Amino acid sequence: MAYNLLKGKKGIIFGALNDQSIAWKVAERAHEEGAQIVLSNTAVAMRLGNVDELAEKCNSIVVPADATNAADVENLIAKSMDFFGGKFDFILHSIGMSPNVRKGIPYDNINYENYLKTIDISALSFHKVIQMCRKMDAINDWGSIVALSYVAAQRTLYGYNDMADAKALLESIARSFGYIYGREKKIRINTISQSPTPTTAGSGVFGFQSLLDFTDRMSPLGNASADDCADYCITLFSDLTKKVTMQNLFHDGGFSSMGMSESAMNQYDKSFKDCDELKKKE
Amino acid sequence: MAYNLLKGKKGIIFGALNDQSIAWKVAERAHEEGAQIVLSNTAVAMRLGNVDELAEKCNSIVVPADATNAADVENLIAKSMDFFGGKFDFILHSIGMSPNVRKGIPYDNINYENYLKTIDISALSFHKVIQMCRKMDAINDWGSIVALSYVAAQRTLYGYNDMADAKALLESIARSFGYIYGREKKIRINTISQSPTPTTAGSGVFGFQSLLDFTDRMSPLGNASADDCADYCITLFSDLTKKVTMQNLFHDGGFSSMGMSESAMNQYDKSFKDCDELKKKE
Amino acid sequence: MAYNLLKGKKGIIFGALNDQSIAWKVAERAHEEGAQIVLSNTAVAMRLGNVDELAEKCNSIVVPADATNAADVENLIAKSMDFFGGKFDFILHSIGMSPNVRKGIPYDNINYENYLKTIDISALSFHKVIQMCRKMDAINDWGSIVALSYVAAQRTLYGYNDMADAKALLESIARSFGYIYGREKKIRINTISQSPTPTTAGSGVFGFQSLLDFTDRMSPLGNASADDCADYCITLFSDLTKKVTMQNLFHDGGFSSMGMSESAMNQYDKSFKDCDELKKKE
Amino acid sequence: MAYNLLKGKKGIIFGALNDQSIAWKVAERAHEEGAQIVLSNTAVAMRLGNVDELAEKCNSIVVPADATNAADVENLIAKSMDFFGGKFDFILHSIGMSPNVRKGIPYDNINYENYLKTIDISALSFHKVIQMCRKMDAINDWGSIVALSYVAAQRTLYGYNDMADAKALLESIARSFGYIYGREKKIRINTISQSPTPTTAGSGVFGFQSLLDFTDRMSPLGNASADDCADYCITLFSDLTKKVTMQNLFHDGGFSSMGMSESAMNQYDKSFKDCDELKKKE
Repeated sequence: MAYNLLKGKKGIIFGALNDQSIAWKVAERAHEEGAQIVLSNTAVAMRLGNVDELAEKCNSIVVPADATNAADVENLIAKSMDFFGGKFDFILHSIGMSPNVRKGIPYDNINYENYLKTIDISALSFHKVIQMCRKMDAINDWGSIVALSYVAAQRTLYGYNDMADAKALLESIARSFGYIYGREKKIRINTISQSPTPTTAGSGVFGFQSLLDFTDRMSPLGNASADDCADYCITLFSDLTKKVTMQNLFHDGGFSSMGMSESAMNQYDKSFKDCDELKKKE
Repeated sequence: MAYNLLKGKKGIIFGALNDQSIAWKVAERAHEEGAQIVLSNTAVAMRLGNVDELAEKCNSIVVPADATNAADVENLIAKSMDFFGGKFDFILHSIGMSPNVRKGIPYDNINYENYLKTIDISALSFHKVIQMCRKMDAINDWGSIVALSYVAAQRTLYGYNDMADAKALLESIARSFGYIYGREKKIRINTISQSPTPTTAGSGVFGFQSLLDFTDRMSPLGNASADDCADYCITLFSDLTKKVTMQNLFHDGGFSSMGMSESAMNQYDKSFKDCDELKKKE
Repeated sequence: MAYNLLKGKKGIIFGALNDQSIAWKVAERAHEEGAQIVLSNTAVAMRLGNVDELAEKCNSIVVPADATNAADVENLIAKSMDFFGGKFDFILHSIGMSPNVRKGIPYDNINYENYLKTIDISALSFHKVIQMCRKMDAINDWGSIVALSYVAAQRTLYGYNDMADAKALLESIARSFGYIYGREKKIRINTISQSPTPTTAGSGVFGFQSLLDFTDRMSPLGNASADDCADYCITLFSDLTKKVTMQNLFHDGGFSSMGMSESAMNQYDKSFKDCDELKKKE
Repeated sequence: MAYNLLKGKKGIIFGALNDQSIAWKVAERAHEEGAQIVLSNTAVAMRLGNVDELAEKCNSIVVPADATNAADVENLIAKSMDFFGGKFDFILHSIGMSPNVRKGIPYDNINYENYLKTIDISALSFHKVIQMCRKMDAINDWGSIVALSYVAAQRTLYGYNDMADAKALLESIARSFGYIYGREKKIRINTISQSPTPTTAGSGVFGFQSLLDFTDRMSPLGNASADDCADYCITLFSDLTKKVTMQNLFHDGGFSSMGMSESAMNQYDKSFKDCDELKKKE
């Protein structure tokens, strides 16, 4: 169902790889809600996925860009302003990658070159995009910038490695720049802390299926899906949330406010059961 | 501008006194967005304000109720279900009052009978409304319940007195019941932590004008107004935020994430200036 | 090992029932560290437990008091000041009880009379003790007041019921009064958010053994014991923490900052295993 | 006053420049409490300050090290283990520097090479020290690692620039490594979020005097001094806090839990006063 919530709005969406991606869903929903969009991803991601298909569906263009590279970002913004015929209104940053995680290098034997890459790709790219937008005066007053984060920024999950630090940094950048861009142009900057989501990126984390089961049982509303997240993003891009800024917004079915649910505890309890008894019951 | 975001939805709105009230603005906006509403307030508040005017504007009815009184709440829900022709979808709880604040009794010489009244009116009433809704199975699956809170729940503001404790309790009730109502009926419960707002209720707090100035200068987007809050409530009642629950959502122009802004510091600095110098500058 | 950290200090300790109680351990440690103490508990708790034994060990006296009753609290403070020969330096509040939990009344069918009792006993009693101390000018400048709390104040644990709300309120009272008592007398007020602890009180909560196992596996240092908690309390009563106030301090082996540990996830995973496979492995 | 709290303990203290430094005070207090210590700082800082004087006072040695440099850190740990005759028990990390702040480059026109240096020096150095300690198995079980942080990690203060992001990252590293080092060796890792402190480093921040005044009036106990911080560090290195880990501990006279104090509001109010009136009053 569409409401024309983003009618007349324009925005750049980073990170749509394939139709499992949260960014993909956000692009679709933004388009449905009347927004014009520009899609961007790295050249590699563009080859791996099928973002052109999405662009066609959304009457959009795709501008390849490495968001850590100033020239790329400048080119992307310039091309976007050309496409839009001027300033735009929103940005979705859905970018994250850890070479340490990819290569199975544990946090206690970390490679620092990799670590800085994780930081650069997953957090500093957010700063770079915002700083370039501000320099080029590319965003309309009362615009909205959103990045996707994860509860690992507050609480340690084994296996999430240096991505946890990157997410904490990302959320800090949202606050630091949110203050500046807010006082100057009334542009708000927030992060959404999303449930673990079975995207191509998310699924790479070790023990992901078990974690999904646990968080789903812990969350009274269950895990939030990529589609749910897209809906939520729409509200944050709309004019109805103009005074929300510098926040990390949990979109997780309640997980972040749970200590222990009955459902998760019951499942956990089964792990101690004698097997014969277990079989009888099931 | 209206989007039909609440088309087909029905809800009860507590606490509209006059057109300064946040609840009043929420009622107007919910109506604009296509919702059917029932208004409720205490008999006293109904005499003091002009909620009937609002009811007419919104094709609504007013059901007087003391939200701390089980019989009143039951009657309100029953009447609402009659009016709606069945279950409803959302609730706004905008209720708060401290006899200690009213009578100028300080927190360190508190009257405990008053304290329990503050708690009962400002926090426990939220539990009572929800518990009765659940007993009467009055809310549709995926419904949304919102209460208005304030940053005093996390940080002490002199003069806010026992209302700070009541708000902390209110936010805890949102979590505690959010878990239960979520797992059973997918109904979400959240609080909005709103900027100080110059309503009839808010203005009663000591030193309110100075506080308003300070928070406005601290917040990069300025204080959020009652109108802004109404817009935000609409998003939380809509189907676009289905997986947000058990959260306290700051709607405050960024205040909660600020340590010190340049604007507030500059104003603060003036307080130390030699007056002649001050006059020359101004 | 003792350090004379509390040499010359005097304090009141509420809530020692038997040698499983955290308050009991705190009394022993405070005595070891050179403090003079007065013990207090309700008349009922005194009959159930053996606090007299503790008093003898610590050269202390026991003054029965219902901490929700002003006359009792006044009498306790007066007797304590007699015993100490003047003002004292610290207080431990380890008091909590929910009639709803005791009677197995669930949170969604709560009895409000019971609820207000839970609040009064588990949270408001803290205010009552502090307010009376202030009226009687009973605490030395730079004194330290501590109450025991639990992570349920921030995150919902099924079965913890209205005690979660009471703990949230308790922590708010620590902040609200911490501001006032701090600016006037430099007296600090904090709460310790302790691991679930197998005391007589704690064990009553439903599913307690499973929860203990889970939190122990989640916490990198394991659950904090009552003895550990006593050590931590000593630091908060000492002169080495004079500038810590209005804080909720997690003393939980790291649990509060964990999202998922390898150890807990491995145990959780076993719950899904085929039993034959399970048996082979074990 | 000394308690022998650290008798038999050994530790490395980073960041003592001169007798204004928090690390200097911690070294003195650790020595008083019976600890053996090794001091470390960069070669530049050693020339600027007088850490040799401190070393003499504390029967310590100074090992120059750039904490971002693996070889330096390895050499430091090796030399320390030589000096101590084996493993040690605690570390204080008091290291922070932002080339952007130094050069007056604002956050919205940041130099990214500088930014990565800020991150490397102020946050990643913490990881590097810990990782090397773990590789060399240099710390005894139940050891304690502390880094100094600041509330800017949670709330934006204008002028604090990229140091805010660095502190957020530092606190995340404490959690991430705290989990790993905790489960393996029971070693705890925490950060202390200290009041703004008039050290050589702190004073460089723009508008520092006004900020000091504001935070002092906001904090019921006033700003925490370097001496206060040293006392608090001692408790965290001692055996009395063994189960506290992965925490950010506010040591700030209550500032972090304040929304507005009467004292700060009164001062703020003066900024609006007519000057004649102001003069009459003063």
